[in-house]
Amino acid sequence: MKSSLLDELIDALRCLPGVGPKSAQRMALHLLERDRPGGERLAAVLQDAMARIGHCKVCRTLTEHELCRVCADPGRQRDVLCVVETPADVLAVEQATGFRGQYHVLLGHLSPLDGIGPEELGLDRLETRLDQGEIREVILATSTTAEGEVTAHYIGELARARGIRSTRIAHGVPLGGELEYVDRGTLSHAFEGRREY
Amino acid sequence: MKSSLLDELIDALRCLPGVGPKSAQRMALHLLERDRPGGERLAAVLQDAMARIGHCKVCRTLTEHELCRVCADPGRQRDVLCVVETPADVLAVEQATGFRGQYHVLLGHLSPLDGIGPEELGLDRLETRLDQGEIREVILATSTTAEGEVTAHYIGELARARGIRSTRIAHGVPLGGELEYVDRGTLSHAFEGRREY
Ligand SMILES: [Zn+2]
Ligand SMILES: [Zn+2]
Repeated sequence: MKSSLLDELIDALRCLPGVGPKSAQRMALHLLERDRPGGERLAAVLQDAMARIGHCKVCRTLTEHELCRVCADPGRQRDVLCVVETPADVLAVEQATGFRGQYHVLLGHLSPLDGIGPEELGLDRLETRLDQGEIREVILATSTTAEGEVTAHYIGELARARGIRSTRIAHGVPLGGELEYVDRGTLSHAFEGRREY
Repeated sequence: MKSSLLDELIDALRCLPGVGPKSAQRMALHLLERDRPGGERLAAVLQDAMARIGHCKVCRTLTEHELCRVCADPGRQRDVLCVVETPADVLAVEQATGFRGQYHVLLGHLSPLDGIGPEELGLDRLETRLDQGEIREVILATSTTAEGEVTAHYIGELARARGIRSTRIAHGVPLGGELEYVDRGTLSHAFEGRREY
């Protein structure tokens, strides 16, 4: 039997993380019965976002512009660079700390076993930024997982080779923790407690 | 500061039930970083569903056609009518039982205190269906709340006045339920509704 449009909607909602068949059904019925304007707005914004949001050409975080909000802000410090793994990590640091410098988003981490080396991670872009001479401190804010540590070590060496100070966020972040899921207080303390690397 | 398209997407996702700021952010980043085709499909289906899904002109459940799948199916029994409160209840009955008859969806329940009487609930439509003479049994599958009971009673009287049999779904201990944890009202009903074994 051909599936109904309601069935299609329930199925389409399952692309959202953590949404199983039961919650997808509840979401579809809620929008149809109680919040059509909300559903229409979500459809429009979603279409727009999927079509127009790309990566910042400087730091690689998500943005619909050529430069993200941070890179385009003339009021931020230009001599401190915070290196993180994902755009979610940028949001977490912005929301939890008073950091007012620049970011570099790796969109991953070094993982030799998966064939992800410095080249695959586009570390040449980071080297170019370090070579420009403005940056005086690199904050290594990769995850405290094994891959995150390897990545931090590698980037720390890149900085050292250029005479740039590098610091690692304090191990207030629980071991094996992904930055995105760390509570604000821990993350804020980890920032304040960063040390020479 | 003008909000970014990512902020707008996170905000728009919050129209979904049970989705707070943290999960909305997680959903937005997941779609943007890992499932753009899923996000594009969701946007298209959502737009289509909000624009085209209305109510079946016979039973009032949700459908994009004039008649829903059940009402349009010539293979279903035409002499049994199951009365429920919401389209979600139709899905629940279809998924859980072997019921192969017709439905009538009230889209609510009688609630005199809120000014919802038989007229506001469109019970004239139901009376018209009962008057057509095809229906021989009305299954009262409204909720087992106070309003649901009042509604079931009222519709039972409409059936009785036309010489149509009406039945009420059994109240009792949920399957797999331990007696100790069942509320008193349910247990009391389960006792009253006991049958030969
Ligand atoms: Zn940027
Ligand atoms: Zn119908």
